Amino acid sequence: MEDNKETMQNLYTLIMAGGSGTRFWPRSKTKKPKQYLNIFGDSSLLQDTIDRFATFTSHHKIYVVSSAAQAEVLEAQTPMLPKENLIYEPVGKNTLPCIGLAAMYAELEDPDGIMVVSPSDHLITNNELFKDTVLAAAKIAHERNGIVTIGITPTYPATGYGYVKTAEDITGTEKIRQFKVERFVEKPNEQTASEYLESGGFYWNSGLFIFKISVFLEAVQQFAPELYVDLRKIQADLGKPGYPQTLDTIYRAVQSISVDYGIMEHADNIYLVEGNFDWNDLGSWESVYLTDKKDENGNAGSGETLLIDTKNSYVHAGNSLVAVVGLDDVIVVQDGDTILVCKRDKAEDVKKIVDQLKAGKKDQYL
Amino acid sequence: MEDNKETMQNLYTLIMAGGSGTRFWPRSKTKKPKQYLNIFGDSSLLQDTIDRFATFTSHHKIYVVSSAAQAEVLEAQTPMLPKENLIYEPVGKNTLPCIGLAAMYAELEDPDGIMVVSPSDHLITNNELFKDTVLAAAKIAHERNGIVTIGITPTYPATGYGYVKTAEDITGTEKIRQFKVERFVEKPNEQTASEYLESGGFYWNSGLFIFKISVFLEAVQQFAPELYVDLRKIQADLGKPGYPQTLDTIYRAVQSISVDYGIMEHADNIYLVEGNFDWNDLGSWESVYLTDKKDENGNAGSGETLLIDTKNSYVHAGNSLVAVVGLDDVIVVQDGDTILVCKRDKAEDVKKIVDQLKAGKKDQYL
Repeated sequence: MEDNKETMQNLYTLIMAGGSGTRFWPRSKTKKPKQYLNIFGDSSLLQDTIDRFATFTSHHKIYVVSSAAQAEVLEAQTPMLPKENLIYEPVGKNTLPCIGLAAMYAELEDPDGIMVVSPSDHLITNNELFKDTVLAAAKIAHERNGIVTIGITPTYPATGYGYVKTAEDITGTEKIRQFKVERFVEKPNEQTASEYLESGGFYWNSGLFIFKISVFLEAVQQFAPELYVDLRKIQADLGKPGYPQTLDTIYRAVQSISVDYGIMEHADNIYLVEGNFDWNDLGSWESVYLTDKKDENGNAGSGETLLIDTKNSYVHAGNSLVAVVGLDDVIVVQDGDTILVCKRDKAEDVKKIVDQLKAGKKDQYL
Repeated sequence: MEDNKETMQNLYTLIMAGGSGTRFWPRSKTKKPKQYLNIFGDSSLLQDTIDRFATFTSHHKIYVVSSAAQAEVLEAQTPMLPKENLIYEPVGKNTLPCIGLAAMYAELEDPDGIMVVSPSDHLITNNELFKDTVLAAAKIAHERNGIVTIGITPTYPATGYGYVKTAEDITGTEKIRQFKVERFVEKPNEQTASEYLESGGFYWNSGLFIFKISVFLEAVQQFAPELYVDLRKIQADLGKPGYPQTLDTIYRAVQSISVDYGIMEHADNIYLVEGNFDWNDLGSWESVYLTDKKDENGNAGSGETLLIDTKNSYVHAGNSLVAVVGLDDVIVVQDGDTILVCKRDKAEDVKKIVDQLKAGKKDQYL
């Protein structure tokens, strides 16, 4: 455990909280997207994510990147973090610039530090195994100067996730299996996903990345040299009065690109650590239903609800009474002055509502 | 038409608006039951009823009986009526005492006047034929000293209505058929209802009664002598300072009984006039759906709604946005801080919600 302790001390976390997921409408709104919702209890998915990392790293080493539009809810939900650790992108630019920006902050603290990049809106319940997995990845990042991803063992031929194909097994004596990565692959169609599942060696891309800050920045310099130069310019003004203007001007002009496309598909020091903890990316209300606790009729949800002759349904009442009679397999979500009533197998179509509301300029409901 | 004109001049209307129907929850609330709702447009069912009678009688001869709890909404909706025509029962006592009470008022105006008793919460769209039917009934009431009911020709074996069995046809030269009544029968079971439909001569009891005031009071004296005495005592104080106290004391003690049980099943001067106008008692949200205008997907309703992949459904949004995705044959009704989501064929079970809310003392939602 000597190694682990060392890793824990120089472990930085970057939680990416700038998303504006639409499939959780009507609870997710422009000013309060999914990561800020307390879907399962009293704390939000973001707060759960912070708490999960806080069990083995310091709050002072946890950064959150978000957008200015979400500043109010982000600050309200993160009193445990130093305010200077909340980083606001002037505009969303996908994951590579976002991680690069946070790396500029962390590098000033400790260029040899290890950074864990994490989504803010996933559900992970087995915190102990999560910690062990992250520390195993940190060890590889530290010892091998690798960029490590955590891969979720697929349980069905999902078409909603990217996959990671593994190569050589480097597990050694550890319990959590570890591999060199052969390649990253995009979201497959159903047939391809089935083939991945059958052939083995494919993992779901969890969006969790672990690397030594210096190693990551070398990769940025090599594979995204323009961005690297821009990030250095931003870093040069960090803490100075002109910083907000510098950040705004430069960041708005950088290329929008994912870390998968920009780095992971090109670099050859990429590793995968198997994530066997309970994991759910909560892609829709259907996945919330499947994950949530059910009563004897298979119903889940929260708030003031009254279900009569209703089974296998998810009903959330925000500040109203929601009564459901004689329906099975439905999702009903009430939030403020908006209500969703949806067949469970159509939960993905909630984004169509958001699209139609946008098209109709019904911003008051978004 | 000489007769009709005479009838129109001495025609009094009693609209019974004291009901507290629960099957229109969540729109119908204790303080604003079904008859006060504008379900199909800008006016309430009560207002539509008043307007229907106002086309052939004077507002000054239209009485409304209701309960004190509904005084606020009743007065707000009836600026066209003299305030003294709004009669408040101290407590609901079913239809016979209610009609008797109103008859006490009207008798002082004109004991030979004809009174039409009407529910306040039914949908009737063919006003011209309705008028002709009422006037035909008024003619029988006038010429034969009969108590006349309007019977709706059954279109299916309904189990939710009482029936009237006709005897001798007295139609004569009129277009609207008219009969002596053999008997009133209670709501039948399905088999009996089918037999009624097949055998013919059975009509749905519409709750519309027409009689000469003096003839009705004679029937009360004969078949409900105690009530008759009580009504006379109430009438003696009408307009005097002690009236509210007299009404309260006496009325609370009278027997609660329907006009069907108390009079119609005993008297032998009972007639039926065929009601062939469009008629719907709007017994549930399902009947509202069936009656309402549909779009090309068979959907009906009102308010800010967004329907995707949804057919044959009724969606009413009060002051929220209601989005429905991937569901057929549902009823969704939003009103204030209450929402109903119901399979159409379970619309009758809405009263179960009200029962459960009452049992749970959730009066804020009732």
